[in-house]
Amino acid sequence: MPFVTITILENKGKDYIKAVSDGINNAVIATMDFPLDDRYQVVHQVGQECFQYQDRQEDRIMMHLVMRSGRSNKAKQAFYKMVTENLSKVPGIRPENIFITITENHDVDFSFKDGIAQFVV
Amino acid sequence: MPFVTITILENKGKDYIKAVSDGINNAVIATMDFPLDDRYQVVHQVGQECFQYQDRQEDRIMMHLVMRSGRSNKAKQAFYKMVTENLSKVPGIRPENIFITITENHDVDFSFKDGIAQFVV
Amino acid sequence: MPFVTITILENKGKDYIKAVSDGINNAVIATMDFPLDDRYQVVHQVGQECFQYQDRQEDRIMMHLVMRSGRSNKAKQAFYKMVTENLSKVPGIRPENIFITITENHDVDFSFKDGIAQFVV
Repeated sequence: MPFVTITILENKGKDYIKAVSDGINNAVIATMDFPLDDRYQVVHQVGQECFQYQDRQEDRIMMHLVMRSGRSNKAKQAFYKMVTENLSKVPGIRPENIFITITENHDVDFSFKDGIAQFVV
Repeated sequence: MPFVTITILENKGKDYIKAVSDGINNAVIATMDFPLDDRYQVVHQVGQECFQYQDRQEDRIMMHLVMRSGRSNKAKQAFYKMVTENLSKVPGIRPENIFITITENHDVDFSFKDGIAQFVV
Repeated sequence: MPFVTITILENKGKDYIKAVSDGINNAVIATMDFPLDDRYQVVHQVGQECFQYQDRQEDRIMMHLVMRSGRSNKAKQAFYKMVTENLSKVPGIRPENIFITITENHDVDFSFKDGIAQFVV
């Protein structure tokens, strides 16, 4: 389910983008009990000056997940750990340069397709 | 009121962008009891590899609304239905390729202009 | 802490972007009691047709903050006032063209680096 907005530096190329989105999606599925096909991601590519992460200048990433409330602290912490491990391996973003935040909503707040609120039908 | 972030594929052109933003705005106004001039929208255009919506490859759209809590389930469901109808007509995005999510906040969490929280003044 | 997503018109140049992100960050730090290095910002540059702020056509900005719940109404209102003052001075965006919204989350919902939820460790 989670709607994941991802920000990376521009001009990284398609392999990098694929690695980032796959690494995040794999961690989402593995740690937070989402269905295998639950992939909803947007990747934004921005320039150095548009990407202020304290004073970092090197490769970095921020991600924001919107998902229904209900996941435990433990599941979220497992997600943070795994996504950071994944991205530090491929495409090789250092753990200190990976930022994550989550906001939660409710059953009625998702329509995955067809104009229906699938969780409350 | 809602602050609506919209993601579409790139290189669709201005008529497509206008159709999308109008179709969403008309549904917002018609179904959720917002004032006629309550239009706050940002459209992001991204490439195929930056727009992961399960395994979809064809024309697709995701939107995220931020608005005050208070709308009923019924109103949200009417919005999902109408916005999907609108966009499937013009610009012709199939209902199965339309994703919507909502997050809610509170009266103090909006400043529409002039540095004032209009709902709590 | 706040994760701040900022939208401006495209082709404004790096000085404008720096003015906007500095002006917002200074207001965040000064009014809402965040640490001096708490800067997490993404700036999106979009075209006129992708930036619907009622019927405005001139220079304008929207920003969305994600932060932990806990800030008072008074602190948020002070932020709205100061950020609007800052941006109206430099780069010179009129107060009537500055839109702000906030959504809140919880301690466990931030990982600033290293795959750890810093607020719950």
